[in-house]
Amino acid sequence: MTETEVERARLRVPRVEDATDYSYDMAAERREFLRAQTGVELTHVGEYSFDPAILPGNIENFIGVAQVPIGIAGPLQINGEYAHGDFFVPLATTEGTLVASYNRGMRLLTECGGVKTTIVEQSMQRAPVFLCADATAAREFGRWVARHIDSIRAAAEATTRCGKLIDIGQYQVGPLRYLRFNYTMRDAAGQNMTGKATLAACEWILREYPGTVRYILSGGIDTDKKHSQINMLLTRGRRVVAEAVLRRELLREIMGVEPQDLFFARQVTLAGAFLAGAANNGAHAANGLAALFIATGQDAANIAESHAGITYSQLLDNGDYYWSITLPSLIVATCGGGTGLATQRQCLEMLDCWGTGKANKFAEICAATVLAGETSLASAVLHGDWVPSHERLGRNRPTGAGAL
Amino acid sequence: MTETEVERARLRVPRVEDATDYSYDMAAERREFLRAQTGVELTHVGEYSFDPAILPGNIENFIGVAQVPIGIAGPLQINGEYAHGDFFVPLATTEGTLVASYNRGMRLLTECGGVKTTIVEQSMQRAPVFLCADATAAREFGRWVARHIDSIRAAAEATTRCGKLIDIGQYQVGPLRYLRFNYTMRDAAGQNMTGKATLAACEWILREYPGTVRYILSGGIDTDKKHSQINMLLTRGRRVVAEAVLRRELLREIMGVEPQDLFFARQVTLAGAFLAGAANNGAHAANGLAALFIATGQDAANIAESHAGITYSQLLDNGDYYWSITLPSLIVATCGGGTGLATQRQCLEMLDCWGTGKANKFAEICAATVLAGETSLASAVLHGDWVPSHERLGRNRPTGAGAL
Amino acid sequence: MTETEVERARLRVPRVEDATDYSYDMAAERREFLRAQTGVELTHVGEYSFDPAILPGNIENFIGVAQVPIGIAGPLQINGEYAHGDFFVPLATTEGTLVASYNRGMRLLTECGGVKTTIVEQSMQRAPVFLCADATAAREFGRWVARHIDSIRAAAEATTRCGKLIDIGQYQVGPLRYLRFNYTMRDAAGQNMTGKATLAACEWILREYPGTVRYILSGGIDTDKKHSQINMLLTRGRRVVAEAVLRRELLREIMGVEPQDLFFARQVTLAGAFLAGAANNGAHAANGLAALFIATGQDAANIAESHAGITYSQLLDNGDYYWSITLPSLIVATCGGGTGLATQRQCLEMLDCWGTGKANKFAEICAATVLAGETSLASAVLHGDWVPSHERLGRNRPTGAGAL
Amino acid sequence: MTETEVERARLRVPRVEDATDYSYDMAAERREFLRAQTGVELTHVGEYSFDPAILPGNIENFIGVAQVPIGIAGPLQINGEYAHGDFFVPLATTEGTLVASYNRGMRLLTECGGVKTTIVEQSMQRAPVFLCADATAAREFGRWVARHIDSIRAAAEATTRCGKLIDIGQYQVGPLRYLRFNYTMRDAAGQNMTGKATLAACEWILREYPGTVRYILSGGIDTDKKHSQINMLLTRGRRVVAEAVLRRELLREIMGVEPQDLFFARQVTLAGAFLAGAANNGAHAANGLAALFIATGQDAANIAESHAGITYSQLLDNGDYYWSITLPSLIVATCGGGTGLATQRQCLEMLDCWGTGKANKFAEICAATVLAGETSLASAVLHGDWVPSHERLGRNRPTGAGAL
Repeated sequence: MTETEVERARLRVPRVEDATDYSYDMAAERREFLRAQTGVELTHVGEYSFDPAILPGNIENFIGVAQVPIGIAGPLQINGEYAHGDFFVPLATTEGTLVASYNRGMRLLTECGGVKTTIVEQSMQRAPVFLCADATAAREFGRWVARHIDSIRAAAEATTRCGKLIDIGQYQVGPLRYLRFNYTMRDAAGQNMTGKATLAACEWILREYPGTVRYILSGGIDTDKKHSQINMLLTRGRRVVAEAVLRRELLREIMGVEPQDLFFARQVTLAGAFLAGAANNGAHAANGLAALFIATGQDAANIAESHAGITYSQLLDNGDYYWSITLPSLIVATCGGGTGLATQRQCLEMLDCWGTGKANKFAEICAATVLAGETSLASAVLHGDWVPSHERLGRNRPTGAGAL
Repeated sequence: MTETEVERARLRVPRVEDATDYSYDMAAERREFLRAQTGVELTHVGEYSFDPAILPGNIENFIGVAQVPIGIAGPLQINGEYAHGDFFVPLATTEGTLVASYNRGMRLLTECGGVKTTIVEQSMQRAPVFLCADATAAREFGRWVARHIDSIRAAAEATTRCGKLIDIGQYQVGPLRYLRFNYTMRDAAGQNMTGKATLAACEWILREYPGTVRYILSGGIDTDKKHSQINMLLTRGRRVVAEAVLRRELLREIMGVEPQDLFFARQVTLAGAFLAGAANNGAHAANGLAALFIATGQDAANIAESHAGITYSQLLDNGDYYWSITLPSLIVATCGGGTGLATQRQCLEMLDCWGTGKANKFAEICAATVLAGETSLASAVLHGDWVPSHERLGRNRPTGAGAL
Repeated sequence: MTETEVERARLRVPRVEDATDYSYDMAAERREFLRAQTGVELTHVGEYSFDPAILPGNIENFIGVAQVPIGIAGPLQINGEYAHGDFFVPLATTEGTLVASYNRGMRLLTECGGVKTTIVEQSMQRAPVFLCADATAAREFGRWVARHIDSIRAAAEATTRCGKLIDIGQYQVGPLRYLRFNYTMRDAAGQNMTGKATLAACEWILREYPGTVRYILSGGIDTDKKHSQINMLLTRGRRVVAEAVLRRELLREIMGVEPQDLFFARQVTLAGAFLAGAANNGAHAANGLAALFIATGQDAANIAESHAGITYSQLLDNGDYYWSITLPSLIVATCGGGTGLATQRQCLEMLDCWGTGKANKFAEICAATVLAGETSLASAVLHGDWVPSHERLGRNRPTGAGAL
Repeated sequence: MTETEVERARLRVPRVEDATDYSYDMAAERREFLRAQTGVELTHVGEYSFDPAILPGNIENFIGVAQVPIGIAGPLQINGEYAHGDFFVPLATTEGTLVASYNRGMRLLTECGGVKTTIVEQSMQRAPVFLCADATAAREFGRWVARHIDSIRAAAEATTRCGKLIDIGQYQVGPLRYLRFNYTMRDAAGQNMTGKATLAACEWILREYPGTVRYILSGGIDTDKKHSQINMLLTRGRRVVAEAVLRRELLREIMGVEPQDLFFARQVTLAGAFLAGAANNGAHAANGLAALFIATGQDAANIAESHAGITYSQLLDNGDYYWSITLPSLIVATCGGGTGLATQRQCLEMLDCWGTGKANKFAEICAATVLAGETSLASAVLHGDWVPSHERLGRNRPTGAGAL
């Protein structure tokens, strides 16, 4: 071995090429390797309460866990189509005041009669791009695809029991024909399913199309793990609305603000969000979603897509305040991915959202939670207790959460 | 008590109003409360290896932890201004293949001589909006603010030892004058600091300004926990570039692709991202960032801002491939927030990134990690092993991570 | 009469309430009125070569004309599906160098064998929004609309001989259901047709829908006279591609640049356009389009939508340069609107584009013209003759257009 | 000559290489050439009332004019800082109802006491990009630029009597440093001035910078003749606000709508515009601007930038309606370009806006005109007379403009 090869070997993370790689011992061996390399003993990381044998499919080179504190907020009354009743929402976060703030919003919403939630539509995508000889060829290719949608659907759906191909959106730039395959999914997030099904569909197209085309399985418009305007418009995951009528006297009592002041401020922030080119003209959907995602084994990278939102509100004649937030690309799962791991599953179970048939319910809980956070933060900003509460609750101050 | 009041009391999460709320017992009492409400025993959630007394400032209504599996990727050679040498990167995720994919990219980059990283600029914001009588008054108000920048700075900086007010961007819509306060921050993310300092500055303005104005502490252009074009342009957190020259023979050998094919595909995805209105014209920055953020106690909600990115690449005359990604709004901390918690601190320490004076280094590691993921996924998509590797590594298949 | 009423009467523009308002005399009377009010003799404005009796439907309160200079550029060889052969393109502009620059690009493209043009798709919209009781009701309303598409189509199409309702895109925010009616159009721009047809469709819906809804005929997503990402994605007017292969030696000879330098610079401007959040990542489509629109009686306000564009290019192995531009929302007409007026019609006739059956041809000419301008300006910027040529040709310098 | 050369010569547009190219005869010769090529007699095009000798700097290959009908709208009372009093606004358009609609809005605004206008800021850009060895070098280059701003300013300003360099915005992507030079301009639009001045500045930088850089004079973020978010935020041309309080009884009387209904609808269209990713969340700024631009010799291509807008409104306690529109990138001139041509100058003179010292006044008139159009169209959409009025006034119907 050359010196470089020796050095490389020295830096190679220990690993075995079979299922025994997912064992206490291998995790410990890797921690020991890291200790040797970095001098750091990963004692806490090495403390976990499950058997690593459950981990294949979730992680590689396992060394232990991040222990992320979970706080509980609620009860939150939800009057949805799938979620009914009072929910206690687990939020895994390290940002002080987050749980307290969402909790306050949940109290308001619940006392106002709860949150109405609606899943407007759902679809998960994979969007290959086909490269054609020129723009005319690309257009003709697109027409051929439209004519053969049934066969393409059959090819795609042969790979999965869960997903149905809803339709294929077509978008052309020059000689490039981007096909956005939209699938229904059940209770998994669906990205892997769509990848596999679309690969099969593309291969079928490649075989059957009489002309000459090439393709790349993702042309950038999926847009996986990325916010985009196409997601805002055309949905990715679930498009979910949470809406509530905030009663004037309760807003005053719990939040210390007047509906008309909130609504006045809404005009200002709508202008600000449009000016800034923001992905969300509400307050902080990402906060509640990230915390709920981590607690329940969602793919936290989907915060990129899921945090987008559109607020629509009206001041009612009786002085109450109608408030809605629409999450156009909320991506959640109740099976597959990290949902079956130890703590994650328990948090889902606590919401009665673990396993098949539960993703719609969970999506509604997510949206309702977001709305709670919106009402709380918007009120705090207006009422002037935003910074003080962070001073009091945030940043390792030795105090109880008296404001809850 | 009325029936409703009784019911409400029954649903109230147990809590005590002092520091003893952060104790094993109170966490257990809340878990027991949840068991009573939901029937779910939060056994795994209750397993954690630290004393809850460390948690004030990080969470309220603590019940336990999410145990998120960590895999280790690397070594990744970084040639930055703050990060030098070979790093092993902890990635907390439940998405199979993620660690393997980033690991593969790190191998490529390391064998190509490493990643060069540069922090181009940094600033953290709070952006109040001042409401004036009309647009003329708002413009004059803005001029007054510009003339009194020194006093405003003094008022703001009096509240903090860490932040310096760099400048105040001014943006007007109608009679609204949005002021975007840009601060340097040190090793905390800085949102709380900017809130407190800007509140003080606004109160100073309110007292001293001879005219009549009102303000709202956030007018929507900060844009906290939200992707936005203003962040793309003007930076939020740190603007960090990771760049590398991928050598042709190593791309072939490790990734099985040709540079010119990658570059060809780049043209296609640039068109796709522009068409879709995406926040990032690269592949999947959110994946690596979310995993690294969770492992190291970052605020995962900042994935909303941090996942934005701009890829710029060129095919070199010698056939090698220059690749850069610019993260315009990467928000990280090495002290404050969740960085001091048990597992989080150990993961930061493993990177020699815990505590003061380390945030720049950690930001460089984040950007380098993102670049590794970009090269790996883009190659996989092109080479056709994207779906197959997810089939092999993802979704709970009982197999070792042979592709690492 | 009160004093105010007297004053108001004094300021009232002369007008008669019948067709004789469109006469030489009434135009003169209004000019005389304006002379009395402002002291300015509108002598040139009063010089026009047509009978004002042709103007009803195009203008109100007619006083005369703007005389906008037209320059001629070409020949431009187009190899389209509707436009074949060499075209001389009339450009009405007051910006020096514009004609010269487009002319130069046309020479390059023509010598390279011409421009290939493709109309990828077409549709014109009107997008009402239906206001429902809540989000669930809005979703159900949307499903009802989808089920009754045939009846809705019948109601819409009963109002027009030209337009066919392609489909109705549905987009929901809170309790609002935005319906984007997409129509084929023939040779008029189609906005009026879509307005009338959609009004009929909405009234039908209002009558027939069993639930309670209200609607606003435009909810802001049409997006008429406004650039938008929805137009980029889903087309407004015609989506047209112009593409050409620029031969290396001709680029050198005519433009003084190398293909690889242009392509290198393309990477830079793609990054810049993405960074800036631009509506077009090419150079200056608006210039050629505005000039051609004014010459030919198009609605110049549609520059807002029509100037959007996506450039896609590749450097070929033989050193030539493939260049395409896609105009996703090009709005043109060859009948209706201003196309039948005196000079406008002649300019259209000169392109053999006046009247029915010509809009596709004209759209192809527009796109080909845009591509000519792109190649010329991009080359000029690179070659360094951009500013000098503006110095020489622009801004009232007394010199011939030697650079043509 | 080869056959191709003969053919090319045959198709060459007649031209002479000196000032006599701008003559009646040469224009006629070119029209005759076009007649020979196309069979079309450009009789109307050949009718114009000025001496072509005035045209150098405005057009090349002059053949005649487009005669665009002008209608007059007004009076419009403006209470601006530069525009005071009642104005009659010339609108060159071929879109029926446009003048009538703007006229109606002007009547409303005038009866409500007029429009208040404010120019909030102004700047015109040229944005070169400097290409550096890597991102670190680019950042250091940027710092050097900042340190040498005085010398760079001197180099830039030496080329112009009109423009002052305000500042240079710096934006980095990878190794690319985009510099956005912001200049004040006087009464010309300023694009040529900024090009020349920035070229001089860049050449100075190239000479003086101790490191190695290259540059391209435009890197795509100017963003000339293109809408962009950077323009929305940072202004291009003039940022102008028009605002008015619409009195309830006048809205009822003149528009037939209630303020609260307009405001209700505003919430709906704000949601729609955000959803669609629109450049303007108002109604149709492009309509009025295009018509006014053509009448007054503005560069109509700047509709691309100028049509952007942000509406901000509030319903007042007394039932009146405060309405503002902010045009962030309004580009106008009152000297240079087409402003001195025959009809164009007369139209500017009629507004007392021709020549030096008038651009601010003209910008205010533009913004006030836009607001008039907004109030009129929004009311029409709501009141239901939008389509009917287009039926009555539009599309060559033989009827007087009775609705004015």
